[in-house]
Amino acid sequence: MALIVQKYGGTSVANAEKIRNVARRIADAQSRGDQVVAVVSAMGGTTDALIELAGQVCDQPDDRELDLLLSTGEIVSSALLAMALRQIGHEAVSLSGSQAGIRTERSHGRARITAVQPGRIQKELAKSRVVIVAGFQGVTEEMDVTTFGRGGSDITPVALAVQLRAARCEIFTDVEGVYTADPRVVSNARKLKHIRYEEMLELASHGAKVMHPRAIELGAEFKVPILVASSFSDAPGTLIDGGEPEKEARQVMGIAHDIDVAKVTVRGVPDHPGLAAKLFAPLSEAGIRLDTVVQNASVEGKADITFTVSYQDLKRASDIVGPTVLEIGAHGWVSDPNLGKVSIVGSGMQSGAGYAADMFKALHEAEVNIELITTSGIRTTCIVDEAKVPEAVRALHDAFSLEVEE
Amino acid sequence: MALIVQKYGGTSVANAEKIRNVARRIADAQSRGDQVVAVVSAMGGTTDALIELAGQVCDQPDDRELDLLLSTGEIVSSALLAMALRQIGHEAVSLSGSQAGIRTERSHGRARITAVQPGRIQKELAKSRVVIVAGFQGVTEEMDVTTFGRGGSDITPVALAVQLRAARCEIFTDVEGVYTADPRVVSNARKLKHIRYEEMLELASHGAKVMHPRAIELGAEFKVPILVASSFSDAPGTLIDGGEPEKEARQVMGIAHDIDVAKVTVRGVPDHPGLAAKLFAPLSEAGIRLDTVVQNASVEGKADITFTVSYQDLKRASDIVGPTVLEIGAHGWVSDPNLGKVSIVGSGMQSGAGYAADMFKALHEAEVNIELITTSGIRTTCIVDEAKVPEAVRALHDAFSLEVEE
Repeated sequence: MALIVQKYGGTSVANAEKIRNVARRIADAQSRGDQVVAVVSAMGGTTDALIELAGQVCDQPDDRELDLLLSTGEIVSSALLAMALRQIGHEAVSLSGSQAGIRTERSHGRARITAVQPGRIQKELAKSRVVIVAGFQGVTEEMDVTTFGRGGSDITPVALAVQLRAARCEIFTDVEGVYTADPRVVSNARKLKHIRYEEMLELASHGAKVMHPRAIELGAEFKVPILVASSFSDAPGTLIDGGEPEKEARQVMGIAHDIDVAKVTVRGVPDHPGLAAKLFAPLSEAGIRLDTVVQNASVEGKADITFTVSYQDLKRASDIVGPTVLEIGAHGWVSDPNLGKVSIVGSGMQSGAGYAADMFKALHEAEVNIELITTSGIRTTCIVDEAKVPEAVRALHDAFSLEVEE
Repeated sequence: MALIVQKYGGTSVANAEKIRNVARRIADAQSRGDQVVAVVSAMGGTTDALIELAGQVCDQPDDRELDLLLSTGEIVSSALLAMALRQIGHEAVSLSGSQAGIRTERSHGRARITAVQPGRIQKELAKSRVVIVAGFQGVTEEMDVTTFGRGGSDITPVALAVQLRAARCEIFTDVEGVYTADPRVVSNARKLKHIRYEEMLELASHGAKVMHPRAIELGAEFKVPILVASSFSDAPGTLIDGGEPEKEARQVMGIAHDIDVAKVTVRGVPDHPGLAAKLFAPLSEAGIRLDTVVQNASVEGKADITFTVSYQDLKRASDIVGPTVLEIGAHGWVSDPNLGKVSIVGSGMQSGAGYAADMFKALHEAEVNIELITTSGIRTTCIVDEAKVPEAVRALHDAFSLEVEE
């Protein structure tokens, strides 16, 4: 008998019929002899509806109150799923994040789990019950409800799988697994049977929406195998794990893209130590994540500093950069909101040279201009014009023959 | 500076505009120098919508799961109200029943409060914040969420007023106060300025929907003055308190009615000790509340036993009574689902005779046939044909001249 932690996203529980479908899937797993803990998102659309309600009573909802408000969405779907399981003869109990022992720090809207106290879940599992846990939420020491921010509902299942020493974490969603590229962009994108944690992390961090990067990091740290599969079909999904060290990894394995990229260039920054820090400290304090930072060579004691942020953060970043530019004696700044990025990812890239060059060549042939380049050991990313992103993804998919299984 | 506990019902917070209106009322109270704890119901319609959702995933929702599901309704309205208060510059925090320290016994769907642990509320009040509490819910020792059953959201404000030693509990609703009879039935019904706990308790227990009887009992026990008023107007409401002992109370003060009455008569019950207990024990175990029980004189060692239950309970009561009738050797049983009751209530009734006689005379003149009669010290109730209830109420209101202020 294995303990499995499953997760069902918002589209998988979008209405009563889909909730009953998920209940049958869980019941099947239990009938095969597994113990099941299932984490659920809010019914599709619920979170947006709650945010809209909040917008009708105030301009900018308080973070703490918004968290308490949004947390109800997952509680509703959890309770309904437990009812649906009982209806088909399977004992089940639903738990809020607080009841499930998901403890977090106090940062509302983007809290991190500090501990999982699994006592209640274990007690319910011992009674042979399916345990349904409301995803996306936890509770502080002061018993205030927190949420992990949008997309963060993958954190709960992986953290529970770690704490409960589950055999596997299964993420059920509206896609059938992880693909070599987004199938909506590349028609012959291929579903991967298997991918390594670090590759999945790079893909997720650079635009692949399948899973939340923090959840993958957590799985990697504690070596929990993660299966990504569809809740609407029985097609085999993609297994994310540490891979087989002896086996040569594929050199380019997949392509991620992201169209929400904006660029800010500060011109004529005096070449004094500490000025870059002065520029970036207030952005960091405001919680704005810098994606790429490039400083060109200093000419006559002045340099240009360019950085990218998400499109959503551009307005706030501009408000902060404006005054700072004057303060540090730079010439001025410009921004470009209409950028995107494409990344090639593969564990084998670190052992071989030439992948970056192949990438630039393919983009050049597709007449895609490269604005900025960044790399990690197993990834190369190019910032390009937003409108050129789909073309760039297709060109790279072709160039590295990713449609072909090795 | 007085501490006031307010309660806003579902129609008072039915949409964003009404929530903003309630926020303004609370802000006004705080601006007058009062500390405010406000208990809110779910936005009108929410609870029914959640029950409908539950009905779409199962035939009969599990009590525990239903409580967790329904509790989200009040959390949503509480969080929205706190946001609306912050929007107009008043610091506010919303608390679930659990966070507010409302501890209950384990009976889901009809839990009773066992304790109020006011630590968190007091901490927030000390920060000069308005505290919004989700009504209708609490939490067991095992941290399972419970609800008080429909209509039970008046319990939270009164219990909080008791525990926090509030100067007053204010119940804001969609009527302007307590009337001498239901104004929808009696056009010249008069709003009472003042009513005693025991009178209000009799009215509420016999059909007046203004407040939940358990909440009134609790207020009476701890002598918390309760104001019932409209959240949509500034008209003065009705104050419920212990009254002035030296002042002669009005003899008949108001009329309650209820059309959800059903009657069961068990014919030919052998006159042996203990048979009535055998008849009623299984009903009590099933949680069916008997309203009125009458046994006629025994003729030839056989008696008829008649009792009334709410219309909703008739089906379950019938299922239980059928087999029991055979078991105790009675002749058989009949039921009548279409009854109602009218009650006259007044503290002065206990000191004077003749009110019951006046009641029967008025009903007789209105050609309303009386099926059964019950009395308490300050109340007389007649069970009548459901269709005759409105006529009976009007006849009694006229007979006792309740439209005239004394």
